[in-house]
Amino acid sequence: MKKIEIGHGSGGKLTRDLIDDLFLKYLNSKELKPLEDAAYLNFNDPVIAITTDSYVVRPLFFPGGDIGKLAVCGAVNDLAVSGALPQYLSLGLIIEEGLSFSDLESVLKSISSAAEEAGVKIVTGDTKVVEKGKCDGLYINTTAVGEVKKKLLVENITDGDAVIVSGTLGDHGTAVAIARDEFDIEASVVSDCAPLGGLLIPLFDIDGLKWMRDPTRGGAATVLAEVADNTGLGIEVYEEKVPMRDDVKFISDMLGYDPLYLANEGKAIIITSESSVDDVMSRLKENPLGKDAAVIGRITSGHKGLRLKTLIGGERVLDLLEDDMLPRIC
Amino acid sequence: MKKIEIGHGSGGKLTRDLIDDLFLKYLNSKELKPLEDAAYLNFNDPVIAITTDSYVVRPLFFPGGDIGKLAVCGAVNDLAVSGALPQYLSLGLIIEEGLSFSDLESVLKSISSAAEEAGVKIVTGDTKVVEKGKCDGLYINTTAVGEVKKKLLVENITDGDAVIVSGTLGDHGTAVAIARDEFDIEASVVSDCAPLGGLLIPLFDIDGLKWMRDPTRGGAATVLAEVADNTGLGIEVYEEKVPMRDDVKFISDMLGYDPLYLANEGKAIIITSESSVDDVMSRLKENPLGKDAAVIGRITSGHKGLRLKTLIGGERVLDLLEDDMLPRIC
Repeated sequence: MKKIEIGHGSGGKLTRDLIDDLFLKYLNSKELKPLEDAAYLNFNDPVIAITTDSYVVRPLFFPGGDIGKLAVCGAVNDLAVSGALPQYLSLGLIIEEGLSFSDLESVLKSISSAAEEAGVKIVTGDTKVVEKGKCDGLYINTTAVGEVKKKLLVENITDGDAVIVSGTLGDHGTAVAIARDEFDIEASVVSDCAPLGGLLIPLFDIDGLKWMRDPTRGGAATVLAEVADNTGLGIEVYEEKVPMRDDVKFISDMLGYDPLYLANEGKAIIITSESSVDDVMSRLKENPLGKDAAVIGRITSGHKGLRLKTLIGGERVLDLLEDDMLPRIC
Repeated sequence: MKKIEIGHGSGGKLTRDLIDDLFLKYLNSKELKPLEDAAYLNFNDPVIAITTDSYVVRPLFFPGGDIGKLAVCGAVNDLAVSGALPQYLSLGLIIEEGLSFSDLESVLKSISSAAEEAGVKIVTGDTKVVEKGKCDGLYINTTAVGEVKKKLLVENITDGDAVIVSGTLGDHGTAVAIARDEFDIEASVVSDCAPLGGLLIPLFDIDGLKWMRDPTRGGAATVLAEVADNTGLGIEVYEEKVPMRDDVKFISDMLGYDPLYLANEGKAIIITSESSVDDVMSRLKENPLGKDAAVIGRITSGHKGLRLKTLIGGERVLDLLEDDMLPRIC
């Protein structure tokens, strides 16, 4: 079985072979093709959004996706929730010596098909190789850039705004937890990992759209607790309204996780004025990715911080994630 | 001694503390400050260059620099050699559990001062933490974007063009090799790691400027062998003209390295029309970073590939770096 060697990171002949034989097979674009140190990009407008993330998920392959799909979706989703068009992507790979070519090829295929689905092009890249025991197979960095269509600032949020979630919560975290061999669970939960441009770009021209965020690491609760912190306002979330798969609820109960803190990789939290709720909801429901969208709470000046109105009629104060329940979830 | 824990990568409270206590102390910018998923950037022109690199250098600290300075210089240099203004930088950190806060702080200080020297702003970032034994202290990804002032394409290069190098070759590779404890050498070689915008941007308006590249991994020989490959032209390099420190020559001889294949982190190879050589050389010499600049060769249609005219009157054909002499040099 062909494996990655230290020389594949030399910048010399083996690196060139890797690029020619594998990378350009899956990631070809006219911007990438010259293989220069930088790619030239043409935009229609000079106001651009940029986002970066590194991916260290364990295991590399999980139900519903792999580190490659995750690295593309994570980047494009960060632009889409920021009111920008995902257009161009950079790709930085850190590979552990000994990774099989077939695993690398699978990841590149995923990157290629996720990029196609998301309508973005890989325009520049870099490959480093480190010795065995200095990585965990493969780490990926993606940085995405795209034109800004609507600046979504947390300052826009005011008392009375509605909090919407685009679908069920906790699917990615649960799927990755199960994919680790630590738990003896068989279940059909798959990661929700998906590019959200198609779902969210149609919302950009709704006047009352205030702010969006994809609740990845730290989950929906951490995102909303940060919103409360940053605005000085309060947020009420109604547990009964939160869309959640029964198996996710069951498994996370069993494992002692709170799904509100579990990572999602294909969901958005959307804050909108009350008067735009119907418009936002109907556009979300037009897309299969938004079929389970729900209004789960509202912004209030009546208190500070994030409060969960529980099913049994109580109230729980939620803060940022304290500890890392599931390290390396993305 | 305070150390990085797994929870610092949770995306929750500990991550927020790390950002507030350490990152914003050194990396503050109005674009970064909102700590949203993406940063909004304003350009004057919608033609932008982008470049990405991951840094896995070992050891993290070496004479003349550290992984932080390297990550900034590498990114801005890739833009400058591409005829673009280095303006904005993203920063992705993968940290090994157990890294000391003081090491991390030292790296952040270096990033901050290199960014200031280079005139770039850190506008977005990401931090991941992996378990002990799944990294080597710290890996960094930087992606840089900036407006394109002059597109420098390898197709511009023609028969008779001159090959210039902006200074001595092999300093970075030699300094890092010595910094590893494998060799029992004491020497005062320091890395040439430096941001090259100040040196190279003044060249952009010289008509005869054809193409530039910073010869990092793989060294000057790999860069020039690639140029020969990509243009179908030949390149002659005169060994006697190549600027090199005596100690670099001595130590690399001793260790069995060819300095033409050693990495540089503050040098540029510049290809220019014969008629612009004087203009390019005089502008280079105006900057301390260009004081050792020299014309080292020329492009020819007389043969294909890269040939070195040796000091003793012979000729050696040079190809891309075959093997990795010094893995993890950047």
